[in-house]
Amino acid sequence: MISTDLLARRERHFGPNAPLFYDEPLHMVRGDGCWMWDADGTRYLDCYNNVPQVGHCHPHVVDALCRQAQRLNIHTRYLNEVVLEYAERLTGLFAPPKLDRAMFVCTGTEANELALRIARHATGKSGVIVSDFSYHGNSGGLAVLTTGLPRPEPLADFCRPVTIPDPFQWEGSQQDMVDTHLTMVDEAIASLDQAGFGVAAVMFDTIFSTEGLLDVPSAYVQGVAERVRAAGGMFIADEVQPGFGRMGDAMWGFERTGIVPELVTMGKSMGNGHPLAAVVTSSALADAFTGDALYFNTFGGNPVSAAVGNAVLDVIEQEALMQHAAELGQYLQDRLREVAERFDCAGDVRGRGLFAGVELIGPGKRPDAAMARAVINDMRNRHVLVSKIGPADNVLKIRPPLCIDRKEIDLLAETLSKSLKALTR
Amino acid sequence: MISTDLLARRERHFGPNAPLFYDEPLHMVRGDGCWMWDADGTRYLDCYNNVPQVGHCHPHVVDALCRQAQRLNIHTRYLNEVVLEYAERLTGLFAPPKLDRAMFVCTGTEANELALRIARHATGKSGVIVSDFSYHGNSGGLAVLTTGLPRPEPLADFCRPVTIPDPFQWEGSQQDMVDTHLTMVDEAIASLDQAGFGVAAVMFDTIFSTEGLLDVPSAYVQGVAERVRAAGGMFIADEVQPGFGRMGDAMWGFERTGIVPELVTMGKSMGNGHPLAAVVTSSALADAFTGDALYFNTFGGNPVSAAVGNAVLDVIEQEALMQHAAELGQYLQDRLREVAERFDCAGDVRGRGLFAGVELIGPGKRPDAAMARAVINDMRNRHVLVSKIGPADNVLKIRPPLCIDRKEIDLLAETLSKSLKALTR
Repeated sequence: MISTDLLARRERHFGPNAPLFYDEPLHMVRGDGCWMWDADGTRYLDCYNNVPQVGHCHPHVVDALCRQAQRLNIHTRYLNEVVLEYAERLTGLFAPPKLDRAMFVCTGTEANELALRIARHATGKSGVIVSDFSYHGNSGGLAVLTTGLPRPEPLADFCRPVTIPDPFQWEGSQQDMVDTHLTMVDEAIASLDQAGFGVAAVMFDTIFSTEGLLDVPSAYVQGVAERVRAAGGMFIADEVQPGFGRMGDAMWGFERTGIVPELVTMGKSMGNGHPLAAVVTSSALADAFTGDALYFNTFGGNPVSAAVGNAVLDVIEQEALMQHAAELGQYLQDRLREVAERFDCAGDVRGRGLFAGVELIGPGKRPDAAMARAVINDMRNRHVLVSKIGPADNVLKIRPPLCIDRKEIDLLAETLSKSLKALTR
Repeated sequence: MISTDLLARRERHFGPNAPLFYDEPLHMVRGDGCWMWDADGTRYLDCYNNVPQVGHCHPHVVDALCRQAQRLNIHTRYLNEVVLEYAERLTGLFAPPKLDRAMFVCTGTEANELALRIARHATGKSGVIVSDFSYHGNSGGLAVLTTGLPRPEPLADFCRPVTIPDPFQWEGSQQDMVDTHLTMVDEAIASLDQAGFGVAAVMFDTIFSTEGLLDVPSAYVQGVAERVRAAGGMFIADEVQPGFGRMGDAMWGFERTGIVPELVTMGKSMGNGHPLAAVVTSSALADAFTGDALYFNTFGGNPVSAAVGNAVLDVIEQEALMQHAAELGQYLQDRLREVAERFDCAGDVRGRGLFAGVELIGPGKRPDAAMARAVINDMRNRHVLVSKIGPADNVLKIRPPLCIDRKEIDLLAETLSKSLKALTR
């Protein structure tokens, strides 16, 4: 039970528009592994939060944070070994020699801003292609590229949104779907060239999560990269959501598509909650940019952030979380499919590794946003946390910390089943 | 002695252009209060770093960080009391009722980006006035407003830089100086209006630190605010450098000028090194913006950051650091003036509270950048850390953690004296 006092205080300090989850909001006070506790001591299974990637308050990560914070926290204009070790390990997660340089920032927004600056500097062009339901950050420069959230700014004149293939909703062959959508990319490039902007970059979340976790064919992503490069532009892979092993079969979402991006951005899960983000690119691109721009980020790559980043990589390695995400991800898909088979409204189960989507529909595959909203609130009342996403707001977003186990996935699947049963009676 | 291995590793991972302090760089491993230790165990008096505002690794701040990181670190879409307490305390540092809303982000860049979005939304205009030697952040949108650092991007067509009054270099009356410089502001506004942008905001660092810590008359700042407001624009006070009591006589730099900004941005010192920043504005402006934009910042206002922010405010209060900055700031000015009287090249000592500048000149007040560079390197070799700033790169920047004491200021002044003596023989 949330006190009305607390809600009133929140409205006084954050205003009436600050986003809050669930019809009946939660007042959280503690986290551990895949679990959070509210102020009344009720325990919730967290199947939503990907920021605590290796588990809420993982002791190894907290310990690294505290040890370094007690010792030194300062910028990178003095030498420090912690951040060099982290840069070595992070770039070591990419096949050599191309993506060999990490530039540290604090948020996914800062990473995408920096990636765009580098792409524009290198190409001499300014146009950007994004998906037509996407989100890459909250700065002014990224707001004007935002197609998946309300924003007061008009879409940038140098931006061309393209529709991403949706295999579940597409009526026709996969080849037709890919060709049709690549034609839209050709048109976007032609339009940017004609307007004099040219194409500096395409920026895609490589798991297309805001878009509804679409099961996009690799042939499409490859076709986009080829076309953008032929026009002189670059591929920016936004790995803020898929990165750091969540996909199970790869450390980064782009690896599953067979392309190698010029620029990779990451954030959220990178510091398990600590504000840590990065651009990984080639030394050639980075050095050309920093030769002309004095780029400096006060907090970026400070030893505390780097120690946290190292600790997160330790846990991913020591607990074999990528392999775990592959195995448990398969189990998650299997259990969700078992549930979906019993409910017509659960039209599609998809995703990769420990990031799953369940598309909720009515007759004729009509998106059912009301059902998605009802399900996440009903599940919340049964103490399992998921959310929803997609242009029609009808895809359940299931994205637990990577340490989730089989029993917890069983609880998730059983709870989804109970909610669907209660709501479709 | 820095190992060549470490420098080579740094170049391999950060490239040849990553900024590094001093001709002979420092390899820092530990910090405490106003002191840092290098890998050889040599102790350096830190008179440069304002990010560790209440002292390197302050135990109360580290303790708050660790306690909350062990408990819960999650975004603000669940209710949490820690961030509400922090919002209450932070906005309590502003006179009611106008600046009553804090919006939490992670870096000064994010704060200035958000402030600009809010100003543009509220005014319906896009033009921005900045000083002609300024820096407000590293995003693409702030890079095109940057006049005080190299950037590859051209200056934005909607930006008008203005020259800030420099009382030390100005030849003539103060009234003439203010009038002349306000005429430039009139011209900037007219130019923005004529080009169809209008003026959304003027954005000033209220201590004008990048500009060389100029002793700008309040009449100028008031005149700018009046003119910008008459044209329909807003005043954004960038308090990233002066804020949180460093000025001694006020918590915020703008308070000394007699104006009340529509938007205040802060960062750096706010979390004593933890990536924490904010925009403080009126609830009216914030709510109008968030009514049209779904603004969300994943890490912004998380309970760990908020706990750190609260702890920094605890220390500022409990150790009376603002009053300390006033008293020790006066002592710092006195000691620096004593030194300056003995050396012709030390042309001006200025600043406020624990932020001091010493302008180094040759005959005819000619800026002497070579001397400034020599001094900071010589002082570094005597184990006292300062830096330099200003359009001519000739102003010593002295900006210690606020916990500095009289003996440490004596050491700073004596070391500056020794360096000037050695370099002017």
